[in-house]
Amino acid sequence: MKKSNRNQIKLRKSTKKGTPPGTPIYIGQDREQNSTMTLYTYNPKEYKINKAIGLHDLKGIDKSNWHWLNVIGINNSEFISKICNQLGIHVLTSEDILNTQTRSKSEISNEYIFSVLKLFKNEDPLLIVEEEQVSLVLFENLVISFQEVESDIFEPIRHRIANENSRLRSKGVDYLFCLFHDIIVDNVIEIVDLIEEQNDNLETEITSSVSTHQLLATQSLKKDIVYIKKHVMPMKEAVGKLIRTPSPLIRTETIRFFDDILDHLDYVADSLDSQTLQTVGNRELYMSMMEISMSNVMKVLTVVTSIFIPLTFIVGVYGMNFENMPELKTQYGYYYVMCGMLLLALLMVFYFKKKKWF
Amino acid sequence: MKKSNRNQIKLRKSTKKGTPPGTPIYIGQDREQNSTMTLYTYNPKEYKINKAIGLHDLKGIDKSNWHWLNVIGINNSEFISKICNQLGIHVLTSEDILNTQTRSKSEISNEYIFSVLKLFKNEDPLLIVEEEQVSLVLFENLVISFQEVESDIFEPIRHRIANENSRLRSKGVDYLFCLFHDIIVDNVIEIVDLIEEQNDNLETEITSSVSTHQLLATQSLKKDIVYIKKHVMPMKEAVGKLIRTPSPLIRTETIRFFDDILDHLDYVADSLDSQTLQTVGNRELYMSMMEISMSNVMKVLTVVTSIFIPLTFIVGVYGMNFENMPELKTQYGYYYVMCGMLLLALLMVFYFKKKKWF
Amino acid sequence: MKKSNRNQIKLRKSTKKGTPPGTPIYIGQDREQNSTMTLYTYNPKEYKINKAIGLHDLKGIDKSNWHWLNVIGINNSEFISKICNQLGIHVLTSEDILNTQTRSKSEISNEYIFSVLKLFKNEDPLLIVEEEQVSLVLFENLVISFQEVESDIFEPIRHRIANENSRLRSKGVDYLFCLFHDIIVDNVIEIVDLIEEQNDNLETEITSSVSTHQLLATQSLKKDIVYIKKHVMPMKEAVGKLIRTPSPLIRTETIRFFDDILDHLDYVADSLDSQTLQTVGNRELYMSMMEISMSNVMKVLTVVTSIFIPLTFIVGVYGMNFENMPELKTQYGYYYVMCGMLLLALLMVFYFKKKKWF
Amino acid sequence: MKKSNRNQIKLRKSTKKGTPPGTPIYIGQDREQNSTMTLYTYNPKEYKINKAIGLHDLKGIDKSNWHWLNVIGINNSEFISKICNQLGIHVLTSEDILNTQTRSKSEISNEYIFSVLKLFKNEDPLLIVEEEQVSLVLFENLVISFQEVESDIFEPIRHRIANENSRLRSKGVDYLFCLFHDIIVDNVIEIVDLIEEQNDNLETEITSSVSTHQLLATQSLKKDIVYIKKHVMPMKEAVGKLIRTPSPLIRTETIRFFDDILDHLDYVADSLDSQTLQTVGNRELYMSMMEISMSNVMKVLTVVTSIFIPLTFIVGVYGMNFENMPELKTQYGYYYVMCGMLLLALLMVFYFKKKKWF
Amino acid sequence: MKKSNRNQIKLRKSTKKGTPPGTPIYIGQDREQNSTMTLYTYNPKEYKINKAIGLHDLKGIDKSNWHWLNVIGINNSEFISKICNQLGIHVLTSEDILNTQTRSKSEISNEYIFSVLKLFKNEDPLLIVEEEQVSLVLFENLVISFQEVESDIFEPIRHRIANENSRLRSKGVDYLFCLFHDIIVDNVIEIVDLIEEQNDNLETEITSSVSTHQLLATQSLKKDIVYIKKHVMPMKEAVGKLIRTPSPLIRTETIRFFDDILDHLDYVADSLDSQTLQTVGNRELYMSMMEISMSNVMKVLTVVTSIFIPLTFIVGVYGMNFENMPELKTQYGYYYVMCGMLLLALLMVFYFKKKKWF
Repeated sequence: MKKSNRNQIKLRKSTKKGTPPGTPIYIGQDREQNSTMTLYTYNPKEYKINKAIGLHDLKGIDKSNWHWLNVIGINNSEFISKICNQLGIHVLTSEDILNTQTRSKSEISNEYIFSVLKLFKNEDPLLIVEEEQVSLVLFENLVISFQEVESDIFEPIRHRIANENSRLRSKGVDYLFCLFHDIIVDNVIEIVDLIEEQNDNLETEITSSVSTHQLLATQSLKKDIVYIKKHVMPMKEAVGKLIRTPSPLIRTETIRFFDDILDHLDYVADSLDSQTLQTVGNRELYMSMMEISMSNVMKVLTVVTSIFIPLTFIVGVYGMNFENMPELKTQYGYYYVMCGMLLLALLMVFYFKKKKWF
Repeated sequence: MKKSNRNQIKLRKSTKKGTPPGTPIYIGQDREQNSTMTLYTYNPKEYKINKAIGLHDLKGIDKSNWHWLNVIGINNSEFISKICNQLGIHVLTSEDILNTQTRSKSEISNEYIFSVLKLFKNEDPLLIVEEEQVSLVLFENLVISFQEVESDIFEPIRHRIANENSRLRSKGVDYLFCLFHDIIVDNVIEIVDLIEEQNDNLETEITSSVSTHQLLATQSLKKDIVYIKKHVMPMKEAVGKLIRTPSPLIRTETIRFFDDILDHLDYVADSLDSQTLQTVGNRELYMSMMEISMSNVMKVLTVVTSIFIPLTFIVGVYGMNFENMPELKTQYGYYYVMCGMLLLALLMVFYFKKKKWF
Repeated sequence: MKKSNRNQIKLRKSTKKGTPPGTPIYIGQDREQNSTMTLYTYNPKEYKINKAIGLHDLKGIDKSNWHWLNVIGINNSEFISKICNQLGIHVLTSEDILNTQTRSKSEISNEYIFSVLKLFKNEDPLLIVEEEQVSLVLFENLVISFQEVESDIFEPIRHRIANENSRLRSKGVDYLFCLFHDIIVDNVIEIVDLIEEQNDNLETEITSSVSTHQLLATQSLKKDIVYIKKHVMPMKEAVGKLIRTPSPLIRTETIRFFDDILDHLDYVADSLDSQTLQTVGNRELYMSMMEISMSNVMKVLTVVTSIFIPLTFIVGVYGMNFENMPELKTQYGYYYVMCGMLLLALLMVFYFKKKKWF
Repeated sequence: MKKSNRNQIKLRKSTKKGTPPGTPIYIGQDREQNSTMTLYTYNPKEYKINKAIGLHDLKGIDKSNWHWLNVIGINNSEFISKICNQLGIHVLTSEDILNTQTRSKSEISNEYIFSVLKLFKNEDPLLIVEEEQVSLVLFENLVISFQEVESDIFEPIRHRIANENSRLRSKGVDYLFCLFHDIIVDNVIEIVDLIEEQNDNLETEITSSVSTHQLLATQSLKKDIVYIKKHVMPMKEAVGKLIRTPSPLIRTETIRFFDDILDHLDYVADSLDSQTLQTVGNRELYMSMMEISMSNVMKVLTVVTSIFIPLTFIVGVYGMNFENMPELKTQYGYYYVMCGMLLLALLMVFYFKKKKWF
Repeated sequence: MKKSNRNQIKLRKSTKKGTPPGTPIYIGQDREQNSTMTLYTYNPKEYKINKAIGLHDLKGIDKSNWHWLNVIGINNSEFISKICNQLGIHVLTSEDILNTQTRSKSEISNEYIFSVLKLFKNEDPLLIVEEEQVSLVLFENLVISFQEVESDIFEPIRHRIANENSRLRSKGVDYLFCLFHDIIVDNVIEIVDLIEEQNDNLETEITSSVSTHQLLATQSLKKDIVYIKKHVMPMKEAVGKLIRTPSPLIRTETIRFFDDILDHLDYVADSLDSQTLQTVGNRELYMSMMEISMSNVMKVLTVVTSIFIPLTFIVGVYGMNFENMPELKTQYGYYYVMCGMLLLALLMVFYFKKKKWF
């Protein structure tokens, strides 16, 4: 049985009960990790990376270039809180950034656009779906991304920023903001395709021979699908909201790319729906194959019993100790009885064969 | 099996059939309890508690400060009725306050805003969900809360009122009104997280070894989820109504906090949905494990029977009393037969091993 | 098994096929009953009852007082038809009044408001849900109620009309019209609470010991719930329509009471939903307990067979009649064999105990 | 098992693949039948029938009277096509008339209103639902009905046309158009009531004794319900469209009659929903009764085996041929053993009785 | 078990993760195929085919005639990309054309209308549903169709273009564009009718005799239905969008033909819904028939065991070796016992016959 990822997730739940709304407290997995900030500055002509910048560097962000501020590690509540404060992010927004259980959503205010998305990771050869929260804030010339841990998921973006000929370099930060959504959604598609593959393999396996681990694998896949579905639906709402709500921060030509992302999320939702039906089908198939196998066991039992119990009775008859049993004294009685029993057994076998019981 | 909380709830049902609408009659659990009123008066600078105030004290509430009137114990219909009358609360509202079966809702009139919410409590080490009704009325400078029994759920609010630096002290009663909603919803989140944990434990337990109490626990968890879901949906409607309906009693900046609460309720609704699927999954898993175990019992029966019934027949044959049975007189007949039977038994064992029946 | 109420209902179905729409024909249970009319006349100061009035009395209804015309018995199509004609009720409305299968609804025209509602009755100690149709017509100063049979369901209204201090006496006929709805809905609540109680009892019973009658009771409760649900949904629509559609016949202050009734219907709908899930749960529980009990039967069979079949084989061996079986002649052979079998049996018992098969 | 009506329907499917839209080709059951046209001409005072009129007669239809043109037999594509052409019916409409698989709908154009409806027939004592398509076209003074075969379903309309005092004679063709809808819907109600009756009978039957044919009957009823439901939903849409879309061809007073028809269709939809649940319930009941009966079989097997296998072992012991078995030589050994076995058997019986296994 | 078409589809999934949106990369089955372009030019009077034209020919398309450009083979990303570029097709559109996993949709811009549809093919005598993507672009005088492989599905269109009297020749390219949709939808209808037929056959087969392959066939049909449904719903949305969104590229008279196509898609959706229920029904039927057959096996086992085990016990009794067993010495003891056993057996047979166990 594959290890469940729900254990990790359980750890993350520490309740905030008793704190007022807008209290920025980290809610998530315990991590021993320092938060780091990297600033990528670019325009169609130039490009620069500032690694490990500090809080005081945030003031000096010039408005004439485009910037991507990548914040990794959000377990340090105070630090994240200060960043948000510095950049003019509302306290309820910073609370959402710090709470890794925040439902995916997008919020559009006059100052900035805020998106919370879920990044799914499959860290094992045995599909173990795990989820990480990515928060994105889009200002006029700045995109800030908050990640729970270091990962190479946004590597393509780094490459494209570095590449002078990429479309990204000629487009503004709203396109960069869109790219993050695109990568996260492409990631979900990959996971969903993996689930589809596993489901198909399971079906083939169950059809050929039933084994308990298939049941547990089906159960586990179903949980994964429910888990992803739970997060994909809010992501659809979030992207839909970005498309529908006009904001000066996102140009009309970028909207078209968000439309494309929404199409992909529709594809994911469709796939998850049919994969849900597929796991249900696999479970039913498993149970049916179990029943068929049990029915075969029953048939063997019945055939063996039905053949030998009458025969045992017959030999029992001639094992009785009555003094007056004439058959016992005949010369060929034994042989007659043996032949008779053979005949009876053959008849039974023939009868059960006809009934297709074995 | 865990004790069902539905017993208590049954007691509360005394029908109102035959009374006209707007008749303020207490409908709920029988309680021997006096109603008490506590008045908390505060402004950004000062703060005062008046414990155990009487009906006549209600007239003297000054409009220049903010107030929280906490009423505990609603089983005394007449007393509650008088309070409502004194404060100008409509007779249909006071009927709702007194009826602990009122569906969660919010009503917005010109004079006041009325909210009915359900507070879930988990009073045992063994998750036993119980529910209490909390009614809230927001006037211009006054929030009134009606609770069924004394509890420490609103303790954080008392602390914050006492704390001069808390945000609450600088904000009006609409923020206080919002805080009540926030605490009640945080409470639901805690319960739902507990259910998730229990469900996960149950799954692990069922997978390792099947026992009837797991079935009953699953059934019981399912009822709890249905029960909470039934109350959470109206709470979503209620909070949504507060957000959508403009009222001078709630300032725009407070609406944002209600938005936050609605997000949390969405999270709860999502979790309840996936937990429903999880209990269904657990039940199916239980039934499948039962079937698998039953199938194993059947296999043991079939193997034992299939091996020994033919052997018993053979020994029966040589137990027959025919006079003319030459084999009986041979010197090594007995040993031949014994060896033959051993061989047959081994063949059977080999056959069933190959079929993976044990 | 409880008697099904569906038998009665079947009788009521006589098809109208072939008659044009608007043909007033009684469709319902066969009854030998005369229609009677009672007229209650009241105003804040006075109150009068006219029992058993005739068709000609209808003309003399004065417009300065408020009236309630209670018509009991609608099996006389012609009579009802004449009343409707006299009072200016449209032919399609009178067709609906006479057809006890009319779906609950409210129709608002310029002249009058027409409501069809379903009254549920529980006439036995063993919950047998039965349904009666109540039609209500509200004119400017007159409410007409049509009932299938005499019943004490509207007794509270009679009391309140007689009581000079009741709110009813000071309010107009629209409030009276509302009261009918209120009583009918309170009635449904009572039935639904009874169903909840029965469902809870069933669950406890099934958990302690399985019996076929529980299955049938569950099935029967499910049908009752489906049956009530089918009628409650249209009633919600009907009351909702009365609230939403402005009409001079219903004053704004009365709308608030209809809001209250709609809240109660929401409560009923919620309860029916969770009771549906409860019956499903009970059925599943029943089937699981059945399976568990069957599994126990299987285990007993397997244990008994697995212990005694090998032993029987062994005694069979020593019952063979070979001349050369040295063991038979040893002095303690018999005792050795008996001890060996005892040992084997104990081993088996120990093995099955470890497997928790008994 | 009742004969399935799906066989006939299969025949009707001949694909139109490859033909352009608007090609009038008959799609339906093969029939050897000539199309006939009958023209009913009426006004409040006069009434006339022209049987077996030809294509050329269609030109002479005067606009001062009201007409009903009844076309029976649509298997002759060319003929129907010519009629449509003659009367100014669009080619896509005539395609729909000729295709008996057209989904029920209504189309409102400036020239005419077109309705396709499904007529359900129950031609056997054993409910066999079969469906026929009826197309209706309403012009200013003319209603045309297209039927697949001759039937007496519209007989009541013929009577009412002939009857000078009927409401039909005083109303226009829009009322006649409405009457067709009314009759077809009344027809569905009758079928649905029959299904309800059969479902109730099945339930009673299953409860008393289980038999395979009940399973097949349940399955068959479920298919019928699915089949009718599939056609009723589009009919609701069609009638709803007629009500909502204003057209000079239907007068406001006639709309009220369509409202009535829509109410009936709502009743049908409600009934089909609860009948679906009923068939599901019947199936579950059947499976449960099966399981109960199987469990009883198992109990008999276990009881018989558990009583006699140990006894057989005991008699086997005393059938062993050891020379030194002192019990065999005692005078009353045989009787003691017999009594002992009787006692054991009684104990077993008592034990199983207590367990309620028989 | 029929070969699953899901294997092929799996191959097509190569993730695009890491590429920016709007990157035209072929995603689909590996094919070794050159893309070919055929240009059909026509007007009401003339008609011309240009086979195997090249990229440079695209410039010379005159605006005075109507054109159909048929592109077969889209696995050459670069080539398709160049065509799109040449004709002014947006980069996101060309990405969709190249990605065979694009969800069916229609996009309406000022320059062109873009439709992606799924063509279902049934390539085997044993229904194996496979799907191909067809992309259509409608310009003012030009329709471009992109197909994955050469097929004869659009043969009827070629015939109609060649036929001077066909309606197509007198109508513009919007009608041609509509025809593609019509053919693809007619194709789905054919597949769905085939599924219906197979489902009906399966039901008949299961009813007569149960076999494992039926279970697998049912499972497989269910997957096909889910698969088609997943694609039909977006196609409905796409056609609906074409109808609702006004565009100068589609004339009003053509909209009517799209309405017709939408009706057909509604028919398909209805059929798929009832076929889903049918497969569920078939599966349930299969499981029930399995259970019935297993129950029969159990009955045989129980009957045989219950008859012979007691008899074997009796003969065992008289096989005991007690010295003092007076019955053994009586003259007719043997015969009495034999008769007694016969009687007992007959009683048992009679008892089980009455219980209808065989």
